[in-house]
Amino acid sequence: MNVGLVGVTGYSGSVLYELLLHHPEVDSVNLYGHAQSEIKSLESVLPQLRRRANILPYDPADIMKNNQMVFFATSAGVTTELAKPFIDKDFPVIDLAGDFRLKSRDVYKKWYKKDAPEMKYLEKSHYGLADFTSSKGVTYVSNPGCYATATILALAPLVKNHLIDPTSIVVDAKSGTSGAGKKLSELTHFSQTNENLQLYKVNQHQHIPEIVQQLKLWDNDVPYIQFTTTLLPLTRGIMASCYIKARPEITEEDVRKSFNQTYSADTFVNATEGVFPTLKQVVGTNFCDIGYQLNPVTHQIVVVSVIDNLLKGAAGQAIQNFNQMFEYEPGLGLDLIPTLP
Amino acid sequence: MNVGLVGVTGYSGSVLYELLLHHPEVDSVNLYGHAQSEIKSLESVLPQLRRRANILPYDPADIMKNNQMVFFATSAGVTTELAKPFIDKDFPVIDLAGDFRLKSRDVYKKWYKKDAPEMKYLEKSHYGLADFTSSKGVTYVSNPGCYATATILALAPLVKNHLIDPTSIVVDAKSGTSGAGKKLSELTHFSQTNENLQLYKVNQHQHIPEIVQQLKLWDNDVPYIQFTTTLLPLTRGIMASCYIKARPEITEEDVRKSFNQTYSADTFVNATEGVFPTLKQVVGTNFCDIGYQLNPVTHQIVVVSVIDNLLKGAAGQAIQNFNQMFEYEPGLGLDLIPTLP
Amino acid sequence: MNVGLVGVTGYSGSVLYELLLHHPEVDSVNLYGHAQSEIKSLESVLPQLRRRANILPYDPADIMKNNQMVFFATSAGVTTELAKPFIDKDFPVIDLAGDFRLKSRDVYKKWYKKDAPEMKYLEKSHYGLADFTSSKGVTYVSNPGCYATATILALAPLVKNHLIDPTSIVVDAKSGTSGAGKKLSELTHFSQTNENLQLYKVNQHQHIPEIVQQLKLWDNDVPYIQFTTTLLPLTRGIMASCYIKARPEITEEDVRKSFNQTYSADTFVNATEGVFPTLKQVVGTNFCDIGYQLNPVTHQIVVVSVIDNLLKGAAGQAIQNFNQMFEYEPGLGLDLIPTLP
Amino acid sequence: MNVGLVGVTGYSGSVLYELLLHHPEVDSVNLYGHAQSEIKSLESVLPQLRRRANILPYDPADIMKNNQMVFFATSAGVTTELAKPFIDKDFPVIDLAGDFRLKSRDVYKKWYKKDAPEMKYLEKSHYGLADFTSSKGVTYVSNPGCYATATILALAPLVKNHLIDPTSIVVDAKSGTSGAGKKLSELTHFSQTNENLQLYKVNQHQHIPEIVQQLKLWDNDVPYIQFTTTLLPLTRGIMASCYIKARPEITEEDVRKSFNQTYSADTFVNATEGVFPTLKQVVGTNFCDIGYQLNPVTHQIVVVSVIDNLLKGAAGQAIQNFNQMFEYEPGLGLDLIPTLP
Repeated sequence: MNVGLVGVTGYSGSVLYELLLHHPEVDSVNLYGHAQSEIKSLESVLPQLRRRANILPYDPADIMKNNQMVFFATSAGVTTELAKPFIDKDFPVIDLAGDFRLKSRDVYKKWYKKDAPEMKYLEKSHYGLADFTSSKGVTYVSNPGCYATATILALAPLVKNHLIDPTSIVVDAKSGTSGAGKKLSELTHFSQTNENLQLYKVNQHQHIPEIVQQLKLWDNDVPYIQFTTTLLPLTRGIMASCYIKARPEITEEDVRKSFNQTYSADTFVNATEGVFPTLKQVVGTNFCDIGYQLNPVTHQIVVVSVIDNLLKGAAGQAIQNFNQMFEYEPGLGLDLIPTLP
Repeated sequence: MNVGLVGVTGYSGSVLYELLLHHPEVDSVNLYGHAQSEIKSLESVLPQLRRRANILPYDPADIMKNNQMVFFATSAGVTTELAKPFIDKDFPVIDLAGDFRLKSRDVYKKWYKKDAPEMKYLEKSHYGLADFTSSKGVTYVSNPGCYATATILALAPLVKNHLIDPTSIVVDAKSGTSGAGKKLSELTHFSQTNENLQLYKVNQHQHIPEIVQQLKLWDNDVPYIQFTTTLLPLTRGIMASCYIKARPEITEEDVRKSFNQTYSADTFVNATEGVFPTLKQVVGTNFCDIGYQLNPVTHQIVVVSVIDNLLKGAAGQAIQNFNQMFEYEPGLGLDLIPTLP
Repeated sequence: MNVGLVGVTGYSGSVLYELLLHHPEVDSVNLYGHAQSEIKSLESVLPQLRRRANILPYDPADIMKNNQMVFFATSAGVTTELAKPFIDKDFPVIDLAGDFRLKSRDVYKKWYKKDAPEMKYLEKSHYGLADFTSSKGVTYVSNPGCYATATILALAPLVKNHLIDPTSIVVDAKSGTSGAGKKLSELTHFSQTNENLQLYKVNQHQHIPEIVQQLKLWDNDVPYIQFTTTLLPLTRGIMASCYIKARPEITEEDVRKSFNQTYSADTFVNATEGVFPTLKQVVGTNFCDIGYQLNPVTHQIVVVSVIDNLLKGAAGQAIQNFNQMFEYEPGLGLDLIPTLP
Repeated sequence: MNVGLVGVTGYSGSVLYELLLHHPEVDSVNLYGHAQSEIKSLESVLPQLRRRANILPYDPADIMKNNQMVFFATSAGVTTELAKPFIDKDFPVIDLAGDFRLKSRDVYKKWYKKDAPEMKYLEKSHYGLADFTSSKGVTYVSNPGCYATATILALAPLVKNHLIDPTSIVVDAKSGTSGAGKKLSELTHFSQTNENLQLYKVNQHQHIPEIVQQLKLWDNDVPYIQFTTTLLPLTRGIMASCYIKARPEITEEDVRKSFNQTYSADTFVNATEGVFPTLKQVVGTNFCDIGYQLNPVTHQIVVVSVIDNLLKGAAGQAIQNFNQMFEYEPGLGLDLIPTLP
């Protein structure tokens, strides 16, 4: 099978490209720019990849003609415009950007400060939370955000099973710098970031509505979450530390059951009671590791999840959705070598 | 004035030694080991300090004869035994360890897994939370723990003014490695710590009862806190991110007033609404910087405090207590040069 | 094919294990401890690998019966004893340790402060510098050291082609901490290593004689090298910065030719004139990237090589030797995904 | 005494400002911008400094009227123009930039790609290598560059005493990111810098002619140096690792003597035989620590020097020059607290 990839030059795009090149069912990957009119050599832009390939000018007809599906790894706001011809023709798309994640155009506008895609396009989008939904038969997959993935996977068992006070969810999320991408900024200037901790977008991160939207599908009583993001002096990975009041009658056994039932058959999510994961144990992999504990003193449940933001939080989950879309094994192309040490 | 220092070789001890050498009211600092019977040269143990001095064998009578007061910067459990002769003679001590912080011997035993000092000694101890109490006239100051300092300073205005649901306090504390001291451990092995996040002592950190003990003095309805510590790949500093439900009727104005009233006259604590501090802005200083915000959506108050764990969280606060004890200016010897960048 | 692996728990061993599990020609990997008498589960020792396997007690007969070859990833000094029965039976071994690298027992003793293997065993050993020699038909491969690999690959074209003053070789090598392994030490204590640079084993590193031994094979006039190692605050990777006086008549063209001729057909070594590699461009891969330049002012040649110490400097090169030994494609099992960013 | 400071907002400028505020002989520091026409509050630009002060518009007459001397901590090329009125009036200036360091206008043009100051101004400039020269009676001090300081101090004893082959000097210099300043660049983007090593300006660094110019004053036979700079994933500090061929007859004793004679009376330079300094032991201080060793095998001398680039390599040395200029004690205002750990 031939697949197209629009936007290889960003961090997620280049990681996705490598995964596709290693995927047993992918014969070739055709690269496209989204804002260029001439052919560029990949080596001139990303010599580190050591791959000989051309980045072709963006041309929807050409993409649809030469590929069975296309990935978009473009910046926020790009697919709102670019995806139209593909959706019009029901051509399979997996979109790593946030444009099509929110079902409400008003909510999108509020958090992204941009106009959302038109409703008729938005309706075709499937939120590809790969461990809970299937992209089989879907044509437009909106791949979840990195913080959203880590947080939703941590909270899912508790929310789905109504074990908690739905107004009590606190998430202290921590991220390395690669989530901020290649764009230079003071926040990610080495002398500023190193040996430092910096909060950003407190109460304003655009993944908040994405998380709440999903949690509401499981328990409509979840009105909001308290969500904070802190930038850490490391490159890869996200940790979501969650603190939630258990309902009074809930026991350790209830909590344990909820995690076991939810994840015991899951290929990529591992949940363990009383053992909290380190960030590094998932870096370089598509795993989401979760530790949880009901604190008997506070009756709060502490849930900590870790993911590699560029894999499980982006390109890896996109491959999960790709595997679902084309009915391959769930873990195909994702038996990755962890970064140890 | 001559001061004694027992335990110069640990991180807190050596930082304290430097502060004392720069303190305008200190004429000389005499160093003592707590487990040695011969004189050692400081240079042989800590050449980085570039100071010529001897570390004398431990001898209480000698310490009391040659100094007007003594600092203990020893590991947990040491002053429980060593402090007795000083307390018996009402000789001024500032103790940086945790032995005398908890008023209840049972609580101490439970969290420290050691026997607490005898009650008659414990009763003489003053918890030296320097921005809220005074060590004037005190002979035995128990200097607060680093996490406790960051957390209590963040929560004080809200707890004292009863603005919050006292059962809702969540603290996600983050620390660099220097808090773990010089002792080698897997947790702080570079290949393990670097590019990693590691939780430790979840729900079991010995600063939890210290924090609760202090909060209860302000609001006896605070039954517990939900408190987690994460080890970060950096050396200096602690950030305490606190999430607390505001009481329903509380407004932004109430929150702002509580912080302003509490800290507007404080030399070392700065609280700002809506601006969250970076860790590095306090490293190398004795400041505690705080940012806070009432989230109108969740009605939770986010409070984030940052300190240098070895200064405000240890040696710096010890100097504050020293200044109070001898009625010097509060900031004497603490006009430090920040680590910028 | 079944392969055995003795010593999976160290950093090189666990990386090698992952490579073997991903190698298309390896059917199964049997794990053996070298100092244990009972079966241990791999998960209990290395849960991060997420692999279900047993580490079997060390038993040469058993190893030879159940495998077609065996890798040793044990600490220095172990294979000196353990390898004997395998060599006696001409059973294929690839040894990642330093025991069999030096041809002279005296030199080994001087640098390793240990007794070398007996001469009759040593004679059977092949120094597996995979880009210059072939392990085809070899039974005992001694896999090169990490610093030795980086340095020899940087110098080879110049030494082989006699372009330089052989007494002028200066190597300033820089390494991350993973080369020092899992063993705790002050040098690799995070608070000590972070934001620091530390030289170690100046003029005394045991890879010095290994490098000189190889260079002498190409130019017996190389009497020694000036070699220094500096430990850096990062985990993976080695950079060898080499400075060598060009012979007076040597031109840029001569230098360029020597690198081109040596490496143009090499799968894993890339040499570029005037462009110096970053360390990170090889991390996670088996590549050795080299930049070189003849400085027209000093007439010194600057050559900088970078490798991932655990891959090209250990487990990756071991796979190269494995591929040679069994006549597989040179790059089989080594199409790895780089760590980007 | 009142001093002026032009350019407080850069890293060197803000460190210098702190040093001046702590200097016992400085009564007040007046701040000036070099490219602004209105008063700015320091707090709006550098809130981390917690200092209330105004940055005044640049006005030479005003500066000379209100201060006894002025520091320039501006970017390269600025003082070439701005210094003129001060030099015309013989008003004391200490200039931290590179504009006036090179005595040859041609050499300056070649390495800085800019026009040098006019000769009549350049002639008034004194190269303030504070451990070897005195700024007493001088009106225009050109403060040395950071790499130049580390390198020259390492080489001085050997060059002055003619112990080496003057054509054999190799310097492998390593630097943290703060030397690159506040300006955003790909090289210092955290995701790029972290876990990485990057060479830059190989054979082209503008401190090369500065070093050679000084070495030639001591031994005119030094024709050039081989000098390389590598950017490290840390913020503060420079290490210069130097490798130099000793003249054949030179002994360990000769080398030792040269360092002892040169530095035994120096306040800030410490040289030790056979013990190589760590970078961190000087961070936060004005010290230059040096380790050296004659390698008996290669007859090369290894000399490694470390400095804090913003202190000894910039603001600290500027204070040394200030102390010389006004005949204060050499170490006045420089008894700094090291960053330990």
